[in-house]
Amino acid sequence: MKNVFELHQNGGALEIKAKLPIMNKEDLGLAYTPGISKLCTEIHNNSAAADKYTIKGKLVAIITDGSAVLGLGNIGPKAGLPVVEGKALLDKQLAGIDAIPLCIRQCSVHEQVETIMNMAGSFSAIHLEDFKAPECFELERQLQAKLSIPVHHDDQDGTSIAVLAALINSCKITHRKIKDCKIVICGAGASGIATARLLLAAGALDIILTDINGIISPDLSKMNDEQQKMAYETNPRKITGTLKEALVGADVFIGLSTGNVITNKDIKRMNDQPIIFALANPIPEIDPVEAKQANAAIVATGGSKYPNQINNVLVFPGLFKGLLHSRKKTITKEMKLKIAYALAGLVDDPTENYIIPDVFDERVVSTVCNAVINS
Amino acid sequence: MKNVFELHQNGGALEIKAKLPIMNKEDLGLAYTPGISKLCTEIHNNSAAADKYTIKGKLVAIITDGSAVLGLGNIGPKAGLPVVEGKALLDKQLAGIDAIPLCIRQCSVHEQVETIMNMAGSFSAIHLEDFKAPECFELERQLQAKLSIPVHHDDQDGTSIAVLAALINSCKITHRKIKDCKIVICGAGASGIATARLLLAAGALDIILTDINGIISPDLSKMNDEQQKMAYETNPRKITGTLKEALVGADVFIGLSTGNVITNKDIKRMNDQPIIFALANPIPEIDPVEAKQANAAIVATGGSKYPNQINNVLVFPGLFKGLLHSRKKTITKEMKLKIAYALAGLVDDPTENYIIPDVFDERVVSTVCNAVINS
Repeated sequence: MKNVFELHQNGGALEIKAKLPIMNKEDLGLAYTPGISKLCTEIHNNSAAADKYTIKGKLVAIITDGSAVLGLGNIGPKAGLPVVEGKALLDKQLAGIDAIPLCIRQCSVHEQVETIMNMAGSFSAIHLEDFKAPECFELERQLQAKLSIPVHHDDQDGTSIAVLAALINSCKITHRKIKDCKIVICGAGASGIATARLLLAAGALDIILTDINGIISPDLSKMNDEQQKMAYETNPRKITGTLKEALVGADVFIGLSTGNVITNKDIKRMNDQPIIFALANPIPEIDPVEAKQANAAIVATGGSKYPNQINNVLVFPGLFKGLLHSRKKTITKEMKLKIAYALAGLVDDPTENYIIPDVFDERVVSTVCNAVINS
Repeated sequence: MKNVFELHQNGGALEIKAKLPIMNKEDLGLAYTPGISKLCTEIHNNSAAADKYTIKGKLVAIITDGSAVLGLGNIGPKAGLPVVEGKALLDKQLAGIDAIPLCIRQCSVHEQVETIMNMAGSFSAIHLEDFKAPECFELERQLQAKLSIPVHHDDQDGTSIAVLAALINSCKITHRKIKDCKIVICGAGASGIATARLLLAAGALDIILTDINGIISPDLSKMNDEQQKMAYETNPRKITGTLKEALVGADVFIGLSTGNVITNKDIKRMNDQPIIFALANPIPEIDPVEAKQANAAIVATGGSKYPNQINNVLVFPGLFKGLLHSRKKTITKEMKLKIAYALAGLVDDPTENYIIPDVFDERVVSTVCNAVINS
């Protein structure tokens, strides 16, 4: 079997495919000049015609600045390209979506917004990837406010939807209701904060976010603007201290941080039948086997080595298929909730080792797509 | 046969093609996470590795702002997309080049430069298309100075190279030397000025540029900065007046303007055996049949209806193939001259109806490519 370098060494995972032949002057006249003048004039008269007559109508830009790559951190724009190229490959192979991987220089949010807006006429949707927090929040917010095409930040939307889907079924198995769960989210970056927000929208009442400095609360120093907002939207019991203190009596641990930050002792201090999502990649917040031995009722990771893989790939291919099909212009909270419940619903009979559909479950893309269309 | 609208109606002429399968978890691990982390790390350590392991290494961005589309004028960025998509199609079908059509908002040159620079890490070359003069000169100049990948403005480089190739053989047929020719270029925009510059580099000594206000000379009012420079680089006899006055005694007419601006009377006032390149599209500066009747020795147009089609498509696919193959970082004057002479050399025995190779001559792409590599 080829290794990853051999597999990608001839210019990556993608190429541009020509759909029209150029064999003779007749072809040339239809595919190029003078034929295309008619298309130009048609689009000039009605700009929506660009969606019908050019690749723009189906093209998703997957853009990274490589400032927060999973497991690697800030490695720069070019080094972030394999991630966005991998996601474009998945878009095509799983959902038939045409996506182009792009990187953008690390500059101010204002300049990134201007740059993407200046090029946005080329695309039908924007997928942001691996932009670091807290800048990513403002970037997504401004782009969505200013553009008339949907803007998706996968680290926020993709992760939060997949986590909620898994939590819905985990609650079913352990006979809980989301509104009654004490939930601890470890990691207050893009995915942690977005997950907290979506769980609140799904009815969660007791969420505690933690970052490297401890529990996000109004008293914590060294918080960015987004964390400060979250200090008031979460942590209703107003507790302070460390992650380990937050876990005492908690029902759910959601790890969106780095490897090996909790131990079996921490799990034993949680409520009965705790739910453990240790989603850091490549090394989870706790080894899944150890978590199970500490009597976790349900354990999920972000990788494919163990059961219950909670991965964004469950979401984005179907999401973009639905967005392009329906021509919806924004990704709403209602849409995200609908996708999460639809994904959870694909598991007829959830068990501790089957809380979320498999990435290769053929129903996933169409189910997510339909949830988008019907939201 | 399908018409141009039917042919392009399902999202244009291109799509993204996936080169790697995603059939099972093993594929996923190699094409996406965790495999691609190794590629990210490799590129982080050596940014040139992005060229080997991602589509970036072979991707040309063909960018337009739709401000000067041939025969249509300023129709805006989205309406300019069919042109750049057509050129991307030709890149692929004629030379196997992967190019992505993009449009950019019409904003200041400074902002367009910043935008393209911010995204340039995604590409291995930039092809600018249909940017209006005089802004296009500054845009190309600044981008080429600031970027370490080649920047090609097709309306300048492509046209001037193809015109020079055709002129070399036309001079052979009519027993002229370029340095002895009195050359009138009608149109002092991107292609007119670039053509004048390349012909000067090829040895021409007597070039007169004209625009809608008349002959470009130091006395002409209403000139932009680039035209003012050209007033000193051309027009050695320092004549003033109209296009028609410039043509008296001229050997060569090169039309890069709009339809029907000269008549058979104008041609009769030129030198014996005049060379007429009436390249405006879709309507030439003079009807080729009429030009022939007025005793033009050689007539060429930009279209495919008559013999001697002088078209940029002879240049850009092979140019980019050569640039990507050789990893050269700029398109030099020497390179352009070499390409023009190589193209002209493909015509063994030039005649009045065969001054430049056919677009479908299979030797064209490899000849241009080799000229780039060897320059």
